[in-house]
Amino acid sequence: MLTYPNFAFDVLHRDQNGTRARIGRLVTPHGTIETPNYIFCGTKGAIKNLSPMQMREAGADIILGNTYHLMIQPGADLIERMGGLHEFNRWDGPMMTDSGGFQIFSMGHGGVADEIKGRSNNKGRGKSLLEISEEGARFKSYWDGSILNLTPEESISIQRKVGADLIYQFDECTAYHVERSYTEESMHRSHRWGDRSIAEFERGHDGRQALYGIVQGGVYKDLRDISCEWTAEKPFFGTAIGGCLGGSTEEFYEITGWCVEKIHPDRPVHLLGIGAIRDIFTCVRLGIDTFDCVSPTRIARHGWALTKGGSGRMNLRNAQYREDKEPLDASLGIPASSQFSRAYIHHLLKAGELLASQLIAQHNVAVMTRLMREIRAAIKNGTLDSLEREWIED
Amino acid sequence: MLTYPNFAFDVLHRDQNGTRARIGRLVTPHGTIETPNYIFCGTKGAIKNLSPMQMREAGADIILGNTYHLMIQPGADLIERMGGLHEFNRWDGPMMTDSGGFQIFSMGHGGVADEIKGRSNNKGRGKSLLEISEEGARFKSYWDGSILNLTPEESISIQRKVGADLIYQFDECTAYHVERSYTEESMHRSHRWGDRSIAEFERGHDGRQALYGIVQGGVYKDLRDISCEWTAEKPFFGTAIGGCLGGSTEEFYEITGWCVEKIHPDRPVHLLGIGAIRDIFTCVRLGIDTFDCVSPTRIARHGWALTKGGSGRMNLRNAQYREDKEPLDASLGIPASSQFSRAYIHHLLKAGELLASQLIAQHNVAVMTRLMREIRAAIKNGTLDSLEREWIED
Repeated sequence: MLTYPNFAFDVLHRDQNGTRARIGRLVTPHGTIETPNYIFCGTKGAIKNLSPMQMREAGADIILGNTYHLMIQPGADLIERMGGLHEFNRWDGPMMTDSGGFQIFSMGHGGVADEIKGRSNNKGRGKSLLEISEEGARFKSYWDGSILNLTPEESISIQRKVGADLIYQFDECTAYHVERSYTEESMHRSHRWGDRSIAEFERGHDGRQALYGIVQGGVYKDLRDISCEWTAEKPFFGTAIGGCLGGSTEEFYEITGWCVEKIHPDRPVHLLGIGAIRDIFTCVRLGIDTFDCVSPTRIARHGWALTKGGSGRMNLRNAQYREDKEPLDASLGIPASSQFSRAYIHHLLKAGELLASQLIAQHNVAVMTRLMREIRAAIKNGTLDSLEREWIED
Repeated sequence: MLTYPNFAFDVLHRDQNGTRARIGRLVTPHGTIETPNYIFCGTKGAIKNLSPMQMREAGADIILGNTYHLMIQPGADLIERMGGLHEFNRWDGPMMTDSGGFQIFSMGHGGVADEIKGRSNNKGRGKSLLEISEEGARFKSYWDGSILNLTPEESISIQRKVGADLIYQFDECTAYHVERSYTEESMHRSHRWGDRSIAEFERGHDGRQALYGIVQGGVYKDLRDISCEWTAEKPFFGTAIGGCLGGSTEEFYEITGWCVEKIHPDRPVHLLGIGAIRDIFTCVRLGIDTFDCVSPTRIARHGWALTKGGSGRMNLRNAQYREDKEPLDASLGIPASSQFSRAYIHHLLKAGELLASQLIAQHNVAVMTRLMREIRAAIKNGTLDSLEREWIED
């Protein structure tokens, strides 16, 4: 039986107001973090335009790398020869990698966020997924067009070479627009892929990594129940909620609610690819421990700075900031948020200066880490509702 | 008569080996720097992808903004309303602005560096200079196509609003391929523009800025002599060597040598737009006190990291760095130079990650500030020749 002697997850406090919100302590070989927490996406082994030192300055505790991107460039073998991703990118804290399946799926069907949230406009992206079989997925590399295979064994092998603390079983993330029969068939295959992932993980287990299982089952409660039971019975360290979360916010919350009722209650729970502030408040109440989303650094490149309160974000390209002497948010303390006026950042955006994306990205990371700190304090103090009203004005 | 009570330039030490190399102390209202020194270009009011804090960390003492770019976006009036460029971009050290003439000239004739160095290939850039008259220059804005005028009075007025410590007279930078008669005529007009610049400067002089005159005269010794005498007689604080510096490195050094013999010996001397390491060594010996060039941050965006010794720079896109575990230069101390392997930066470049340009740019700034520190020490110790051999391997 798999054990994780160098890892632990302890629930330190539970919300006293009748929600499933909880404060946890997640121990990994690269440090301990408190949950709920936010995992910042360093897709290709780097956070967009921010160094690990800048991430630390902004209060980040944990980052994520994407197996799919890393296997293509620079390749898992090279990362292993460089001493693993921690040594390669100099982030010395806890790190997560996904299994790669999510991106393969995304490229097969269209935009990732669109699919999770049930929007099926499918425009823009090329479809490079060639085949999903019992063995795994076959796809075309976006890098050089070569044909690649990703199997449960290969995904675990790559994630072992990359060396993140928290890693994932291989799964297929089904789309919104597929038939129930496909979702069911795919879920069972993902379970079989999960068993093969566990077997491969166990073969090389040296105590330095911990494995998460993934709940699939799309928008169907009975399938979600089956998948929750399956993950709970398997020797995973943590549980992630994956797959399609419906076509509306209400459906997304409902499906997440189904899952957290049935999954293993003592394991950390990660919600894959979700990171909007409103969603975080609701999902923390449902019992989610960790979140990840590319948005804080992605929207920064388009001029969006996150705010506590107000509309939740401001677009600094907007002419209203042209002469705004206020900093982004002086109370955050870091120079990016407190030293530069919105007028200056507005100018940098108009002038096409890269410094704008650097400053806004670091600010957005600081906003998200403050959000998670304040959420943890509010769970402890029983003030989650009033904190939400401070962050989100309706 | 103009005086500069808040400014000073003192020569602290002269090379004992028969060159004109000297160590100076340049005092401005925003701090004192030692010379020879390097002025980093923040063309549009920002160093490319580096914050003032990152510039300080890399050892930078002084930066430059370009009047031409700033007048177009965000405009001098806005910068003034924001409290001046120091307050706007948060660089609290000494700052220089050019007069704007250089860029107008550049856009009129082609690439700037090509023209200074006599290469006349003239490809690529649009020619937006419409007319040079006794009054000033008329040109088309690259921003919105509007017709703009820049006169000596307007240049000084803009530079006063921007508020840099060291500012420039308005001049025309003549091209290599023009006739001697045009160079001569233009030089005399630049002198008249210089007189008008002084008059305008004097009208608003509040002690917070100091004015540099510019030596023109192209590749003609008698014209350079006339221009040197003209600047020396006028109440400028400093002298810059501008205009075309010939068609070869030898001619460039020869023309610079002519100028430093005749210009005011007690004023700081700036060499406009020159910043290659080999040129700096030669021109320090000729008596140049400050240099500026966009190259340290510009070449960073193309993957070039400067080195002490070797070929002077390495292109991290090159496959030879794919598995190179060495940092850029651990002895520089800053994280950008010491914490990340060349292999990781090679990966960032291949993956199109902006962090690459940030890390390499900061490294290159640190290399240039080390170069200038070591040059100052070598002048003191009489070891400039051996230092040059350490930096440049022939």
